[in-house]
Amino acid sequence: MFDHKLNLGKKLQLKRELHMSKPTGSKKAVPGHLPALRTTIKAAGVQAFIVPRSDEYLGEYVPPANERLLWATGFSGSWGFALVGLKQSALVIDGRYTIQAAQETSGTNITLLTPEAAELQSFIAKNLPKASRIGCDPWTVSTTEWERLERLTTAAGCSLVATRNLVDASWSDRPPLPAAPVSSHPLRFAGVSVTEKLDLLAKTLKSHKAHAAILCDAHATAWALNVRGADVAHTPLALLRTIVFDSGKAILLADKSRLSSDAIRSFSPRVRVVAPAMFEAELKKLASAGKALLIDPQQTPEAVRQVLTKAKATIRLHQDICTLPRARKNPTEQNGTRIAHLRDGAAMAEFLCWLEANAQSGRMSEREAQEMLADFRKATGKLKDLSFGTISASGPNAAMPHYHVGKGPGRRLRPGSIYLVDSGAQYEDGTTDITRTIAIGKPTQEMRQKFTLVLKGMIAVSRSRFPAGTTGVQIDAFARNALWQAGLDYDHGTGHGVGSYLSVHEGPARISKAGNVALEPGMILSNEPGYYREGSFGIRIENLLLVSPPAKIKGGERTMLSFETLSFAPIDKQLIDSSLLTRDELRWLDTYHAVVLKKLQSRVKPETRAWLMEACKPFT
Amino acid sequence: MFDHKLNLGKKLQLKRELHMSKPTGSKKAVPGHLPALRTTIKAAGVQAFIVPRSDEYLGEYVPPANERLLWATGFSGSWGFALVGLKQSALVIDGRYTIQAAQETSGTNITLLTPEAAELQSFIAKNLPKASRIGCDPWTVSTTEWERLERLTTAAGCSLVATRNLVDASWSDRPPLPAAPVSSHPLRFAGVSVTEKLDLLAKTLKSHKAHAAILCDAHATAWALNVRGADVAHTPLALLRTIVFDSGKAILLADKSRLSSDAIRSFSPRVRVVAPAMFEAELKKLASAGKALLIDPQQTPEAVRQVLTKAKATIRLHQDICTLPRARKNPTEQNGTRIAHLRDGAAMAEFLCWLEANAQSGRMSEREAQEMLADFRKATGKLKDLSFGTISASGPNAAMPHYHVGKGPGRRLRPGSIYLVDSGAQYEDGTTDITRTIAIGKPTQEMRQKFTLVLKGMIAVSRSRFPAGTTGVQIDAFARNALWQAGLDYDHGTGHGVGSYLSVHEGPARISKAGNVALEPGMILSNEPGYYREGSFGIRIENLLLVSPPAKIKGGERTMLSFETLSFAPIDKQLIDSSLLTRDELRWLDTYHAVVLKKLQSRVKPETRAWLMEACKPFT
Repeated sequence: MFDHKLNLGKKLQLKRELHMSKPTGSKKAVPGHLPALRTTIKAAGVQAFIVPRSDEYLGEYVPPANERLLWATGFSGSWGFALVGLKQSALVIDGRYTIQAAQETSGTNITLLTPEAAELQSFIAKNLPKASRIGCDPWTVSTTEWERLERLTTAAGCSLVATRNLVDASWSDRPPLPAAPVSSHPLRFAGVSVTEKLDLLAKTLKSHKAHAAILCDAHATAWALNVRGADVAHTPLALLRTIVFDSGKAILLADKSRLSSDAIRSFSPRVRVVAPAMFEAELKKLASAGKALLIDPQQTPEAVRQVLTKAKATIRLHQDICTLPRARKNPTEQNGTRIAHLRDGAAMAEFLCWLEANAQSGRMSEREAQEMLADFRKATGKLKDLSFGTISASGPNAAMPHYHVGKGPGRRLRPGSIYLVDSGAQYEDGTTDITRTIAIGKPTQEMRQKFTLVLKGMIAVSRSRFPAGTTGVQIDAFARNALWQAGLDYDHGTGHGVGSYLSVHEGPARISKAGNVALEPGMILSNEPGYYREGSFGIRIENLLLVSPPAKIKGGERTMLSFETLSFAPIDKQLIDSSLLTRDELRWLDTYHAVVLKKLQSRVKPETRAWLMEACKPFT
Repeated sequence: MFDHKLNLGKKLQLKRELHMSKPTGSKKAVPGHLPALRTTIKAAGVQAFIVPRSDEYLGEYVPPANERLLWATGFSGSWGFALVGLKQSALVIDGRYTIQAAQETSGTNITLLTPEAAELQSFIAKNLPKASRIGCDPWTVSTTEWERLERLTTAAGCSLVATRNLVDASWSDRPPLPAAPVSSHPLRFAGVSVTEKLDLLAKTLKSHKAHAAILCDAHATAWALNVRGADVAHTPLALLRTIVFDSGKAILLADKSRLSSDAIRSFSPRVRVVAPAMFEAELKKLASAGKALLIDPQQTPEAVRQVLTKAKATIRLHQDICTLPRARKNPTEQNGTRIAHLRDGAAMAEFLCWLEANAQSGRMSEREAQEMLADFRKATGKLKDLSFGTISASGPNAAMPHYHVGKGPGRRLRPGSIYLVDSGAQYEDGTTDITRTIAIGKPTQEMRQKFTLVLKGMIAVSRSRFPAGTTGVQIDAFARNALWQAGLDYDHGTGHGVGSYLSVHEGPARISKAGNVALEPGMILSNEPGYYREGSFGIRIENLLLVSPPAKIKGGERTMLSFETLSFAPIDKQLIDSSLLTRDELRWLDTYHAVVLKKLQSRVKPETRAWLMEACKPFT
């Protein structure tokens, strides 16, 4: 997920929150369809049309049927939007995509712009006729985004008008919308039943004196109704919406034929299933009740507000009421993720052992390594999906935090270089995300020094203690302190929230300069400081952390929260200059490796066990 | 200055930002004048009247003529406000004043409330007649505060109405308003001339497309027009307002007779002096120009907005345009404060040497120590005023961060206890603020452990490096890390901004959980972590820091900002358990003491020099 409040401006390179925005990777170059779209725009009586990457569900991944930005412009990035005029068009992208977008849109006359509002505003003022009406499908942008676009177009002397989706109207061979089966997420993984969740949400609604909440974020439906699907890549999500009521009942907008019998059984008698086509009708019904309705302006298509406003509903803008309870993992989910991480750690250990044995040749490709790692995860027999596209990056490629191997084999892992692999898995009991940076052959002293500084930050976060109410921005400083002292830094956040067999990027908490949400017991966050030397090498070390409940400390007066490390895999000792570590840091590291060994040794092959014992040997 | 966004709630004890809110100290108990005020309230046709501690200048200190809350209720605290009804009255105070307010208002039936809005709201709903009209003098509250009071009274079913000041109308022996001479702050201290400052402000106004800014914060006038006065305690402030124009001209609202000839000369030809009584007329003139006017909603009396609104002015709410340039001290101010701190450090050294020689007797009182310290500062020949009421606190008194000696001698400094002294001076070249905690006799191991943990935080901030854009909340975490690890914390901010021969508490930057302003080169901030054990002892160590410009770091890639320590006085080694310090921390401490010795040895008496050499001996 993107944070538009952060990092807007010209120095956008790498500045997006890490992982909140991994690129989808360059797909097969396809030419856009601007001429076809322009014909439709003209016929619709507007002078331009806005095509966002986001779709009706405003999520990180969109199904092929909703890859409208790709269809229109040929641009395949994971974030951006186009303004398609009858003559001139603009594509707004962030720094990660400068080169890719230029390549993918070459041959068109699309102008590339940064996300800075002033740029698009002046583009509109200069290139569109005065007082142009700019169309936009209000189902494809959030209320927050709509308001931003409205301010910007008004300031440019034009107006933003709601239209039907002009891409859909032009796109003759549009693939079908996804309709993968929707299954129940069993109680042994979910921990809390649908009934209990609806009771909790009803209580929240009552405390806000609200009648209902309209949940347009598919993650909210997945959590509240304990359902999972397969409509998008990497996240077991069904693209569905739900309305929850203060009565403890709910309406799920879904084709009944997609639902498993288990799911239907778990709904009874609280959840009524209504065809998605009836959504607007249901909204109108709600409006007529006259009582307050909650919508999250960042997670709800603007169209919902427009329908409700027209029907004279009492709208209250409020954060999705599922967001916080979903982030606070319950004991079953916590236990599940612990098991998932042992399984995943064992696969990582097999991979790292295999890598050490095979990478010295200098012939192994990034793709080969990436596929082998996926194979080790598949071999667990429990893998449902990878939790995002693996970053398998050798040498200078690792200096691009969002690098993905393209179609070919990618770069070879060469002795004297370092290799970075950031990957994760979706298991029914938990979602993982781990990064290790490995020396191929003998690393330089410079690599070791930088790696150790990154490690110091990673350890500082891991062993931090903090009072209730502490937010991610405070913890973020711990991760950077050692790098700052050395005149170094990294241009991404330190950590993002992680879902439970849901999205690997989950709000609302995070460890970053924009992390203003208190870290609460049960939340899972990544801890992934890094260092990137452009054209040379990249370092990132990542474990997932679970926020522990407040605990007494010997000799202390106040209870403190802390982190339980979830991820287990050796950290490459070849890259550590132990003389740069304090006693406390060395103790943390040796203890961590002792736990890795203890937890994984019975879960790996005998030859891996020998390697693991060596990899986990203490420094002291 | 108060931060109402922070720390509202029931656990308010000690939770205010340190120093942003030092109490004024308990004055001679005076009975309030509620009966007289009620007669006026009744005659005015309202059912209640709000009496804030703040006056027409909304500053930290108010002159005796504006001690309206004290006159009405007998409460002498530095923050609070009363709602005086015809029968029931309430006094809103924060946790620091719970005991004091009860004592000072005993014999009345005033109900004490916390600042939580819900408490006052329910008090109004329960105790005032339905649909009561609640009067308030809009000159005595800011626009932000007025809006808060308006929401709260409306929610309680009543209304807030602007009236004349009903306290003034009731107060027969009200002292005269201050009219101390206003002198020029010479260029050798101010560094930048009035003309240059007005040019800068004009540029800022133009960039905001605004015609004028109405500066109601007396600190803004002091800075923009290089004037100082003596209207309030501890801050060399003249209570004046200024209107600055995009033309580079200004209107100063002041009685010409108060102005020194130097000041008048420095104004020519840019500043026109207009009698304060003409302020409303000038506002109406401004309004008629039709162009945008800037007012800071937190620094401007609501009355100004009401006058402008009535006159159909184009109002734009915007942070006072002097706030940031005032906070970024210019080279002359930076150099001045360095000199002021050497002078102040020498006085501190004399005091600490005297203290060590004389405190062991167990007979010295807090007052005696406090007066001796003031005498050492007076002996510099440059002291203009103390920068705030000294906190001279022995034993358990130091556990109250805002303790002040009352009328008597206070507690004795007893062997086996620790003594905390937080004090500062106003010199024309700079404002100081320093805290030292000193062992009287042999400290316990517990005191040494806690002191060392506080010291670790203080050192961590002192030696931090950080990129441009870093805010105080990020640095604040460094100050607390060692305490958090031990299950300890302190309930105040780590640091506040400091003025240049102006207020010792100056915005906008600070080092605290609420510090969301970027630290910029030239800003001066305090660094004062602490530890308080109620009923037992208190620890605080404070130096002032100057933010240094971004600098290259050997082996680094990015420039980093850092802090230059301004305060020089030994830190009591008896209280340091050096085994708890890292090599880096010990190195910082030994280097600091070496610099203290080097800078102060030629500035102190010979007998003090011998003491200083001992006090500054390195650990390693």
